[in-house]
Amino acid sequence: MSLPRIAVDAMGGDEGVRVMVSGAALARRRHDQFKFLLVGDEARIKAALENHPNMRNASEILHCEDVVGGHEKPTQALRRAKKTSMGLAIEAVKHGDAGAAVSAGNTGALMAMSKLALRTMPGIDRPALAALMPTLEEHDVIMLDLGANTECDARNLVQFAIMGAAYARIVTGRDKPRVRLLNIGTEETKGTGELQEAAQRLRDATGLALSFEGYVEADKINRGNIEVVVTDGFSGNIALKAIEGSARFVTDLLKDAFRSSLRSKIGFLISRPATELLRHHLDPNNHNGAVFLGLNGVVVKSHGSANAAGVANAVAVAARLLEENLTERITADLAELGEIRLRENGSGGAAK
Amino acid sequence: MSLPRIAVDAMGGDEGVRVMVSGAALARRRHDQFKFLLVGDEARIKAALENHPNMRNASEILHCEDVVGGHEKPTQALRRAKKTSMGLAIEAVKHGDAGAAVSAGNTGALMAMSKLALRTMPGIDRPALAALMPTLEEHDVIMLDLGANTECDARNLVQFAIMGAAYARIVTGRDKPRVRLLNIGTEETKGTGELQEAAQRLRDATGLALSFEGYVEADKINRGNIEVVVTDGFSGNIALKAIEGSARFVTDLLKDAFRSSLRSKIGFLISRPATELLRHHLDPNNHNGAVFLGLNGVVVKSHGSANAAGVANAVAVAARLLEENLTERITADLAELGEIRLRENGSGGAAK
Repeated sequence: MSLPRIAVDAMGGDEGVRVMVSGAALARRRHDQFKFLLVGDEARIKAALENHPNMRNASEILHCEDVVGGHEKPTQALRRAKKTSMGLAIEAVKHGDAGAAVSAGNTGALMAMSKLALRTMPGIDRPALAALMPTLEEHDVIMLDLGANTECDARNLVQFAIMGAAYARIVTGRDKPRVRLLNIGTEETKGTGELQEAAQRLRDATGLALSFEGYVEADKINRGNIEVVVTDGFSGNIALKAIEGSARFVTDLLKDAFRSSLRSKIGFLISRPATELLRHHLDPNNHNGAVFLGLNGVVVKSHGSANAAGVANAVAVAARLLEENLTERITADLAELGEIRLRENGSGGAAK
Repeated sequence: MSLPRIAVDAMGGDEGVRVMVSGAALARRRHDQFKFLLVGDEARIKAALENHPNMRNASEILHCEDVVGGHEKPTQALRRAKKTSMGLAIEAVKHGDAGAAVSAGNTGALMAMSKLALRTMPGIDRPALAALMPTLEEHDVIMLDLGANTECDARNLVQFAIMGAAYARIVTGRDKPRVRLLNIGTEETKGTGELQEAAQRLRDATGLALSFEGYVEADKINRGNIEVVVTDGFSGNIALKAIEGSARFVTDLLKDAFRSSLRSKIGFLISRPATELLRHHLDPNNHNGAVFLGLNGVVVKSHGSANAAGVANAVAVAARLLEENLTERITADLAELGEIRLRENGSGGAAK
């Protein structure tokens, strides 16, 4: 099959070119149809490519010298967009030179540039950042928004639910992914007015390709009985980081505990396969690759500190969303929502 | 010394009377000066007391038949306040019959009743729920608000900072506890307008008995380098539950991993002292007892699912706050804030 190539911002991330190119090469070892447009400093990209012969006939370099700084303000980066590796990777998607863009650079700048160049899809007011998180079950859970929008209204949240469900159908294969709104309690009266209104709209829109199951509290996100958690970008970012920080906290404590006595050290060595299993399950690199949903094009954010395996994962996420036509799916779901509204209005019997 | 007695709502919590009375008895085994007013069904309290001879001369029973339901709406519970064990425990504090109240019942109802009966302290607009959480270091970190106020303005957040710092001085003995605002990034431009304004006010108020150190992201709460995390009740509740849920998630995965092979099982048995250490460190019962700060009186919320050790911990929190005069400390700090404002206005040179 011919998958559109993936534009990789080779300059973003804590480690820069070497990790980004290694990650792309690793992804290609797993899926030999992958092709890349590597955007950034040509000399450094060429040097990095020397270690990866499998990339030779699979990648083109788009040279550029400017890079978006990790702490640069999005508004500032935006002015230089078309001179930076990040901006050019996105432009490639816009002009059909690539099917998707992957960057490990400044999230705010990536969001701003993507929005400006690709525009939001018809029917979507704001894009949202969505990521996969591990659960106690086999499948992951998708949470959005993770920080693209500090404040959200009910309409935004409903759109996030639809986009998240479209993504979840691809990842889990479930026809009607179970969707919940993140809240501080499960009773209907809990939380902000925006949440209550979003819940009401989702309860009413029964024709959607999702099963709305009310609220979820932050301690139940990882239980494995839901596919999508919808929230505003502020709470989502707090929840995501709290979950990551707490997991690291517990594993740090565990390490200290194992070091606390000779007996524990021996026990640790023996039970190493178990702790390795845990380490693998929790390794953020295995869940790397957050997606900006709601744009006319696929843009994937790789974590700034991801290693080559993490970058390969982000590339695989981008490829999968291309293969499965995520953007078209969301468009179809939004049309469905529009039709539901028309039917409701036409019948004169709008749900309560 | 003569510590005022503690009113215990004997009816609240998942397990009810038996756990509440056992918890009080356990607390008294550790601190034999503790005295109690046990509020609830006399017959059941008496039955529970039979197992605890050390409570015989240390407790009085205040009989009442009505109980606040776990899922009852606060407004509904409020109407029956003075007939319920929860309401009567709070009334005892109001009338000086007890120094503090401890309840494991409905949080919303406890908040509403406490606010109505005890009123907020002069200078405080809204009380906040504060709890201790474990860190990588010896001392705990205090986070507030954990859900008493879904939405907060800058003024509320500044008051929470002052109250949290007063609590932290008691718990950590540090003269100027390090305080940070929970946000989704550490740059000054991050987050909501309320957060940015609260940060500005805290930076300006240099005379306070706290060291304001900017923002903290949710993955850094448990690192042990701060004493107080200030946030609105929605985000605080999300963060707290995400941390609890993630810790449980990791320990659940660890259990599964240890069970995955005979070798791992053996390793587990050998390293048991290490995993027990971890279990103890993470056991929520060891951190049980959230405090409503900003009221004219001490009210402590015990977790609904806390065991006797957890309840004993909540009782100990209440006793410590009485011993150390938390309410007076907060009053003094607020007076200090008032003086800072007067000085600033008087000098005509308000900080930028």
